[in-house]
Amino acid sequence: MKFARQSILLAATAIPMIRAVKPKNYVFFLPDGYGPASETLARDYSNYVDSATVKLPVDDLAIGYVRTKSWDSLVTDSAAAATSYACGIKTNNGAIGVDPDDIPCGTILEAAKLEGYLTGLVVTSRITHASPAGFATHVPHRDMESEIAEQLVGYSHPLGRVVDIMMGGGKCFFLPKSNKDSCRHDDMDLWSVAEDVYHWTMTSSRADFDDIRDSGAVHIPFAFIPSMGHMAYEVDRDPQLEPSLTEMATTALDILHRKAEQQETGFFLFIEASRIDHGSHAHDPIAHLHDILEFNRAMLAVKRWIGDHEDTALLAAADHECGGLTLGVPDYAWYPYVLTQAEHSAKYYAAVYEDILGFNYSAALKESSIVDRVFGGYGIYNVSLTEMARLAITTSPAVFLGELLSARAGINWSTLGHTAVDVTLFGHGVNTDRFVGNYDNTEVCHFMTDQLGFDLGKATKLLQSDKSFAASIQSKAKSKNFLRRFQLEHEDDILQAHNH
Amino acid sequence: MKFARQSILLAATAIPMIRAVKPKNYVFFLPDGYGPASETLARDYSNYVDSATVKLPVDDLAIGYVRTKSWDSLVTDSAAAATSYACGIKTNNGAIGVDPDDIPCGTILEAAKLEGYLTGLVVTSRITHASPAGFATHVPHRDMESEIAEQLVGYSHPLGRVVDIMMGGGKCFFLPKSNKDSCRHDDMDLWSVAEDVYHWTMTSSRADFDDIRDSGAVHIPFAFIPSMGHMAYEVDRDPQLEPSLTEMATTALDILHRKAEQQETGFFLFIEASRIDHGSHAHDPIAHLHDILEFNRAMLAVKRWIGDHEDTALLAAADHECGGLTLGVPDYAWYPYVLTQAEHSAKYYAAVYEDILGFNYSAALKESSIVDRVFGGYGIYNVSLTEMARLAITTSPAVFLGELLSARAGINWSTLGHTAVDVTLFGHGVNTDRFVGNYDNTEVCHFMTDQLGFDLGKATKLLQSDKSFAASIQSKAKSKNFLRRFQLEHEDDILQAHNH
Repeated sequence: MKFARQSILLAATAIPMIRAVKPKNYVFFLPDGYGPASETLARDYSNYVDSATVKLPVDDLAIGYVRTKSWDSLVTDSAAAATSYACGIKTNNGAIGVDPDDIPCGTILEAAKLEGYLTGLVVTSRITHASPAGFATHVPHRDMESEIAEQLVGYSHPLGRVVDIMMGGGKCFFLPKSNKDSCRHDDMDLWSVAEDVYHWTMTSSRADFDDIRDSGAVHIPFAFIPSMGHMAYEVDRDPQLEPSLTEMATTALDILHRKAEQQETGFFLFIEASRIDHGSHAHDPIAHLHDILEFNRAMLAVKRWIGDHEDTALLAAADHECGGLTLGVPDYAWYPYVLTQAEHSAKYYAAVYEDILGFNYSAALKESSIVDRVFGGYGIYNVSLTEMARLAITTSPAVFLGELLSARAGINWSTLGHTAVDVTLFGHGVNTDRFVGNYDNTEVCHFMTDQLGFDLGKATKLLQSDKSFAASIQSKAKSKNFLRRFQLEHEDDILQAHNH
Repeated sequence: MKFARQSILLAATAIPMIRAVKPKNYVFFLPDGYGPASETLARDYSNYVDSATVKLPVDDLAIGYVRTKSWDSLVTDSAAAATSYACGIKTNNGAIGVDPDDIPCGTILEAAKLEGYLTGLVVTSRITHASPAGFATHVPHRDMESEIAEQLVGYSHPLGRVVDIMMGGGKCFFLPKSNKDSCRHDDMDLWSVAEDVYHWTMTSSRADFDDIRDSGAVHIPFAFIPSMGHMAYEVDRDPQLEPSLTEMATTALDILHRKAEQQETGFFLFIEASRIDHGSHAHDPIAHLHDILEFNRAMLAVKRWIGDHEDTALLAAADHECGGLTLGVPDYAWYPYVLTQAEHSAKYYAAVYEDILGFNYSAALKESSIVDRVFGGYGIYNVSLTEMARLAITTSPAVFLGELLSARAGINWSTLGHTAVDVTLFGHGVNTDRFVGNYDNTEVCHFMTDQLGFDLGKATKLLQSDKSFAASIQSKAKSKNFLRRFQLEHEDDILQAHNH
């Protein structure tokens, strides 16, 4: 008994001594759609490729679990989850920075901005996608990406511009409808508005990125948006066109840190490995796996960066699992070799397939091209006649290819959507050892906010005091309700749209 | 920067001050087949039944993750996993307390015994089942339960008797072949041998258990084995016949503690919520769920017991996930109400079904009885004609019922076997806050052993020095190799056998 009493006594005296230590900078890193089984998949694949690898970099950072349910569903979507991480409240699936009554809530990024901190969003999806949107914008539905883009640059955001750096895809939402690549529903040239009215440095070329990374000379606010839609899956990425998530994350850290030091504040940076989720929605183990490996490289880079900047803390957690990934099905089968051959994602080979169908080839040449360049390219060498026939009639060649390869590796997917399982909580840096355990996603927000000494209520009050903004959200909510009805009727189409 | 430096300085000075504190008693609690999604299932069910419940008792004890792969498979079985937790080494699926070459390894329970500690095994499966067997016996294959029973009582164990208390099912392996209930392959009356030669107090009635629990007067070694096979699923348990796992666990803690205090040592207690796994093998959400809820009650009881006995530490982790449980399939469906109606397991209602088939009923009466007492009893009120017809032809009515109910609740099972996902690590009591993170299952053994100051090598050396024992294991390994070949050919039958 005396040993245990001694332990308690020491704890009681030790805690007050370190209570005053606070982080100056906070990084929240969200691996979208990354569940516990995804970690096992990537770990054992890595172990197969290099037997010296027994753990992933993120394995060393695991400190607990996050519960993910949203206000209206046990299974959350990325919008509700991002709002919970950002605002510390529960909301409905689809909602961005608003509560279940479509009233805007202040986010940790906005609270940081109000305190004079630098802020950043670094993602591999469209920058207007649900997860980054939930940290800096307020719309009743995630599909309102034109409005999200406007708020991101500062246009129509009640607090003005709250983002200092953004990197990710989605340039199409910044181009006027008249542009053939535009995704906007109006003729606003938001790219120019951002440059001219809000003084953004808007870049999209790899050369611009490299200049800024190497020179460190950058005017803030700064945007790097290299692709019209999502950035590429890591396994499909052309390094001549797009930097990796790791490169973007470390560049953002360096820029934010330099500016924050100059103005004697800190920064809040949101990073997302956005497309882990898309790989599992599509049942593509290749896209899923390589985006997970890049997530690990980026986490390791952030960890090392914190090693040199000890006043920084990192928390990371997914928004939800995706795909219901199971390893060892059936009969404990597991053949990691099967996953080593593909050089690209299933989506890439599905595009090759569509190309071949369009060529003026003989039937025999088409067939051999499909066997060699589609199935063979993706690592399926033993394709059967039945499988060839099924490819010809499937509505989604990419999912079909993904499921064939999965089955050969011993991987089973139980759903095309998300699941409810708790996700892994990772932490590193100042005081994150105090956040060990099982937490609700809203509690992650409260912990970070408390650590930074921010007041979310202040941001919320300012947002809500803008009556015309509140009215415009309520008005848009009518479209949202339309969208939700539409979604119930066209679940698969919408889901598919979210994958891209 | 200065804050962080201060933090590091404090950590450096604080650690040496508490390094000397060690636990006197250790409890290792294994919820067999309990994966992360099982925790979400039980939590949200509990929240549905009582909205004030937002977390399970075990949620508050989560400190990390355990990697589970065995020597020969990414997906482990209970035997290899138990051996890893007990011996701190990897071994082949099926192996009990032996390494991949069938050489015996010393277990933490045996090391405890060699140090004069009290030891206990408390389970709800047969006491001869893989998990408890892995902590106290050495045979090349888990199916050698007659030999396991012999070693458990001290007969044919090179170290003599190493177990002081055992509670669980499996009386059939203690009865001679001549007894109609026997599972033994020989005529040994092990029950009497245990009493007469090894001085065990062998009990099997609820009254005996209650007497001992209430009076505390018990002669050690003490066995309580109330059932021929596994003890009942919690949802099927008749409290007149069998105590709950919680009752057994707290009674064992009290007995071990009292005796340990008398002899001024500590104790090592292995507890297993054995049948969470059986519920998910059988795709029965009812059996699975209620054994999880009982696991939570038992963990809470152990936690509270440690509150009164602060020199005790608890670690808990499953051996593996089972069933590939996914919630919210399809389309984020989740109807916990569906799980509230069944009063018994699918296995129970499958037995009712078999009874009805045997009755001298008219076809119409049989049909209405099946609708009311089988489907209706299990909570399936809207059974279709197709489902009635499918029940009539299925080879496993219990699995069929389980899957029907699962589908109605929004639960998907992806496999009848185990899966590879990391399992949750729980901890409470002395120094368990130092074991936060992601660990291999062998590291769990090493941590507990280090904390107790035990030397597993000593136990291993003693076991291996018994040349005739080593030779007998090698000889039995030939039967094991036969069994493994048999298993490859009859995977499903063996798997089914393990479920019962």
